[in-house]
Amino acid sequence: MAKMQVGVIGGGVCDNKTEMIAEEIGRELAIRGVLLICGGLEGVMEACARGAKRQGGTTIGILPGNSREDANRYIDYQIVTNMGHARNAIVVASSDVVIAVGGEYGTLSEIALALKMGKQVVTIACKWEVDGIIQANDPVEAVDLALNAIA
Amino acid sequence: MAKMQVGVIGGGVCDNKTEMIAEEIGRELAIRGVLLICGGLEGVMEACARGAKRQGGTTIGILPGNSREDANRYIDYQIVTNMGHARNAIVVASSDVVIAVGGEYGTLSEIALALKMGKQVVTIACKWEVDGIIQANDPVEAVDLALNAIA
Amino acid sequence: MAKMQVGVIGGGVCDNKTEMIAEEIGRELAIRGVLLICGGLEGVMEACARGAKRQGGTTIGILPGNSREDANRYIDYQIVTNMGHARNAIVVASSDVVIAVGGEYGTLSEIALALKMGKQVVTIACKWEVDGIIQANDPVEAVDLALNAIA
Amino acid sequence: MAKMQVGVIGGGVCDNKTEMIAEEIGRELAIRGVLLICGGLEGVMEACARGAKRQGGTTIGILPGNSREDANRYIDYQIVTNMGHARNAIVVASSDVVIAVGGEYGTLSEIALALKMGKQVVTIACKWEVDGIIQANDPVEAVDLALNAIA
Repeated sequence: MAKMQVGVIGGGVCDNKTEMIAEEIGRELAIRGVLLICGGLEGVMEACARGAKRQGGTTIGILPGNSREDANRYIDYQIVTNMGHARNAIVVASSDVVIAVGGEYGTLSEIALALKMGKQVVTIACKWEVDGIIQANDPVEAVDLALNAIA
Repeated sequence: MAKMQVGVIGGGVCDNKTEMIAEEIGRELAIRGVLLICGGLEGVMEACARGAKRQGGTTIGILPGNSREDANRYIDYQIVTNMGHARNAIVVASSDVVIAVGGEYGTLSEIALALKMGKQVVTIACKWEVDGIIQANDPVEAVDLALNAIA
Repeated sequence: MAKMQVGVIGGGVCDNKTEMIAEEIGRELAIRGVLLICGGLEGVMEACARGAKRQGGTTIGILPGNSREDANRYIDYQIVTNMGHARNAIVVASSDVVIAVGGEYGTLSEIALALKMGKQVVTIACKWEVDGIIQANDPVEAVDLALNAIA
Repeated sequence: MAKMQVGVIGGGVCDNKTEMIAEEIGRELAIRGVLLICGGLEGVMEACARGAKRQGGTTIGILPGNSREDANRYIDYQIVTNMGHARNAIVVASSDVVIAVGGEYGTLSEIALALKMGKQVVTIACKWEVDGIIQANDPVEAVDLALNAIA
């Protein structure tokens, strides 16, 4: 059977606490052996990829620009979309379930898009409250809730 | 100078009241001589286009599918994206300002994307409350607020 | 019935002769009352849009970048895709028939994509010879052949 | 340093001989330890992925539809674009070099797009002759030429 693909979304800029949460989520995903998909840039995207790689996981970055070089160094495989914000739809569509860490308008857009596509969304340390999301209290719970949602 | 381009977003299915609001917004936009951009399908998209056309306005539909035939009959020009949900990013990016009428997750996604792109968003009869949006009480006010925002 | 939508494709840089051909094609399209769709930038795109506007026609530019301002000044309506080269698929998919004027690799890519989508392609002053295209000897013939192909 | 990413393009339907060539190219890419990127469906895409997987390689499929399930079973990671033909631009942009095996209009479109993006294109058993491509006589040579082009 195909490996589970979990999307982690969040801001390209974030505070230390959010970064630590994202990194632990990446680590937990790697421990469970699932693929991490993210936007491939900085902030939450880099922190979760770093967590996954330090635990021996696999990471894919769906990049908005036109070069593989744009990716952070914890991305194994770079998908170059050259589509700007519209690449968010690909991150979400390629993920079996989505975990949102913190995040501003861009993350809200992805959360709503995931719900529109009928995907489960787990949020953590995220100010957006949208009917249908599942809120987690800590990174391990976030990953547990996400994987249970697609079990 | 280029004509103003105003995006109207909202559900492909909507109740009568929402439809009447959307139609009046289309009419008001036509009266002010601005271009209406929408997703080209049914519900809010059809109602606003109908309002615009009955007032002699011009309408463009940015379609998610692969055929011009998918558009409602009030669309003057059909843009065929074959991109599904990702076409929402084009609706928003092509609009100088966005008016959201009612709407579910898809509309929330577009609202957030517009805010992320730094565009003003006016909402009416819309359950989503997001920091940064401007709420209007009636269609005329919605159009006034939208056009003032880009004046 | 919906207005015919004709795509004109070609390089962003072109020589004088190619530019004159593109301009005459735009003029002919306007005379026949069809919508001109193009990539919205310079070269062939600007020349055909200029020809159309000087004859009172209507023009839409499907832009690769993220701003309406990128369009040449003969574009009535700007569609902002922020998708780079991938926007070519939208130019072609939105057109009932495609006319290629001159052109390099980008144009060849669009010609092939149009043929793949089952659209007729008329070429003029174009070095690419691909099974299935129709070659025209002058701008008026190009427009005649294109409109006959979708009649 | 990031792993090399090689795109293999070709028809979704192909004859036996083309399939055998594609499979051997997949095998050779796996032997050299590079990532195989393809469109994820049948024909050449399935054959090259099968060759890569049987040799222990890694494969990514950039899918045109809206479901991971659309991929052939030799794809490790599924990228769901829901963009139809426009996904070809992502296959090419994500690849350091492109190998075209056989192929019809769709493949020609990708070849031209790759050349437009400044990427090297190696063709084999391919009827399209375009200035700038490199023609290979057998699968091993195709892979050698491709990897040398980006060395």
